[in-house]
Amino acid sequence: MIINENYLKLQDSYLFSIIAKKVKESSSKSDEKIIRLGIGDVTLPLVPAVTDAMHAAVAEMGNANTFKGYGEEQGYSFLRQAICGYYAKKGVTLRDDEVFVSDGAKSDLGNILDIFSVENSVLIPDPVYPVYADTNIMAGRQILYVNGNASNGFLPMPEKDILADIIYLCSPNNPTGAVYNREQLEEWVNYAISNRAIILFDSAYEIFVCGENLPTSIYQIDGAKKCAIEFCSFSKTAGFTGTRCGYTVIPHDLIRGKVELNKLWLRRQTTKFNGVPYVVQRGAEAVFTDEGFAQVMSNVTHYLEVARVIADTLAELGIWFTGGRNSPYIWLKCPNGMSSWEFFDYLLDKANVVGTPGAGFGANGEGFFRLTAFGGMENVIEAMQRFRRIGLGGA
Amino acid sequence: MIINENYLKLQDSYLFSIIAKKVKESSSKSDEKIIRLGIGDVTLPLVPAVTDAMHAAVAEMGNANTFKGYGEEQGYSFLRQAICGYYAKKGVTLRDDEVFVSDGAKSDLGNILDIFSVENSVLIPDPVYPVYADTNIMAGRQILYVNGNASNGFLPMPEKDILADIIYLCSPNNPTGAVYNREQLEEWVNYAISNRAIILFDSAYEIFVCGENLPTSIYQIDGAKKCAIEFCSFSKTAGFTGTRCGYTVIPHDLIRGKVELNKLWLRRQTTKFNGVPYVVQRGAEAVFTDEGFAQVMSNVTHYLEVARVIADTLAELGIWFTGGRNSPYIWLKCPNGMSSWEFFDYLLDKANVVGTPGAGFGANGEGFFRLTAFGGMENVIEAMQRFRRIGLGGA
Repeated sequence: MIINENYLKLQDSYLFSIIAKKVKESSSKSDEKIIRLGIGDVTLPLVPAVTDAMHAAVAEMGNANTFKGYGEEQGYSFLRQAICGYYAKKGVTLRDDEVFVSDGAKSDLGNILDIFSVENSVLIPDPVYPVYADTNIMAGRQILYVNGNASNGFLPMPEKDILADIIYLCSPNNPTGAVYNREQLEEWVNYAISNRAIILFDSAYEIFVCGENLPTSIYQIDGAKKCAIEFCSFSKTAGFTGTRCGYTVIPHDLIRGKVELNKLWLRRQTTKFNGVPYVVQRGAEAVFTDEGFAQVMSNVTHYLEVARVIADTLAELGIWFTGGRNSPYIWLKCPNGMSSWEFFDYLLDKANVVGTPGAGFGANGEGFFRLTAFGGMENVIEAMQRFRRIGLGGA
Repeated sequence: MIINENYLKLQDSYLFSIIAKKVKESSSKSDEKIIRLGIGDVTLPLVPAVTDAMHAAVAEMGNANTFKGYGEEQGYSFLRQAICGYYAKKGVTLRDDEVFVSDGAKSDLGNILDIFSVENSVLIPDPVYPVYADTNIMAGRQILYVNGNASNGFLPMPEKDILADIIYLCSPNNPTGAVYNREQLEEWVNYAISNRAIILFDSAYEIFVCGENLPTSIYQIDGAKKCAIEFCSFSKTAGFTGTRCGYTVIPHDLIRGKVELNKLWLRRQTTKFNGVPYVVQRGAEAVFTDEGFAQVMSNVTHYLEVARVIADTLAELGIWFTGGRNSPYIWLKCPNGMSSWEFFDYLLDKANVVGTPGAGFGANGEGFFRLTAFGGMENVIEAMQRFRRIGLGGA
């Protein structure tokens, strides 16, 4: 038996273990409380509409008359229809068999690669969510990068001489918080169509977009149904990081080699997946009720208010950043030419604040730093006072 | 963009849609109630210990102080330790980092192939759970078959001239209900070790083994930790088909090319999976409490009693069969030389009983037929009276 030797090409990431070690060492040296602004996970609990629906579903599962065994692999139609209703409000018309419910965007973003030839090349923005690159390294695909940087506001655009078959886009972006506008996404869609490429559009943070006429779905762009697959999740929308539910949209119009990609993915999922727990699907459905949606939007608004406090402070201190307005992430340029890790050490030592070094997200992340809005308002206000106290940004 | 053209080699299965169509046509012709003994899904609800644990976990998720975000991809240690405790009672010692919690055996049986080279050949018993073959066709691997048939009691053994890198075994078997004994599994383990092959051991039905000193884990066989991965599930054990939880065991001793397969699978899961819902993991943990285990064993005992009614009737009628004793499945030889579909039509027409044609599980299934114990005791007693009424088996 031979192993898949592509796995040996993967680099181990020690990012979060190094952070944990440094924080542990530092906490023994100082009496001041350490404030964690590196958290990439939600912190507010599930909303009552969701837990009510889950309790009701657990009760159904314990009763012989209402017990549910295997459901459809692609999800119950009640949830797929609720998702279609959500898209309708964005002006996007979907059929419910274009929606596939899954245990999360991370699973689907990895597993979708099953339906593509390993001969395809992939285009990945740098800095990036590491999973895009790692899943393709595992399969042995050639990876090309487009550069995000301060000059393009970390929103890289297509380059005529870089052609690839599969293109990853994430907007609002993790880690940079940057959001593509309509014209920019139109350019990507046109580029994909003219090159017969496929866009894998990660919209896990779409709910944080709160204005400025920014797209919240790739399908708001003409032609996208012929070139794009969209991945979304309840993780950040409704605090489902530990409850696990997401969805992937593959329009019937997305055809390559006379084959509907929707049919290939259906075959993949019916063969290698058995659906999401009934109890979880009922919880997810509740997100789209009037009551449930108001409750989750209250949480989203809270995270956005926290992000705004960070963004306003950075602006006041004259520190360059992206995100913080339509995203829970703030991506800042390390002051005084510091490297990502130098700034990490400096911030931990002087202010007892923890963030995430941008270098951990790719070569273009060097010299940048990620803060998140998941740490709670009181903590963030205190952290921002410390930023001022240490004279960050030289302002 | 090029699709994975291996998908075009997959054959569509119309087995269950043809069955549904025939049953629908038949039900309009007869007044007698149709009894379904083809059901491959559990029918008894979740037990109280499980729903109590799930209710408590839902409440935790709705409270800021007890809310859980991302868990470890390989499962919470409370559940992995409970699984180790279950194995300890079987005489198998496992470390908790040898256990990976997942959303079910179907997912893991498909996804495990990620860590193996596509150059490996696979050995699959026929008849078989169709997913073993389909997932390998999708990846473009060469498939070899070993024959299950009446002469070997549908328990095929290694053949010297058939060498493969990856070997699928399922015991108790779906669809045949046949169970390998210790000596037979020893022969498979020795064969795998001498050929440096890997056994993928599907033990989803292990809880139905109720005596006769039959193995319930491949690791009860000496040397298996050096050649086998075991897949198990709460689906049939505890009625989790709609609740989704399973686990895969990869011992640290399983090494190929100086690489621990445990480490490769950990990397696969941390990159392409985000764990099982906390609420579901708490439900699964409850299965291993004294109270929970007594409750699920009561359900298992019920299914086994139903299976026994079928088995005893077939024995009385002189019909050859496997299973029915340590399995919820009964695999019978169609009487009077009928083909699988001829018998399906005959049974539906004369007795209004539905089963599953064996031909749907592979070439060696032709002339055989699967009944299951999930249809309820009253229905099964009635169905067996009809078997006698129509003079099945000529007895």
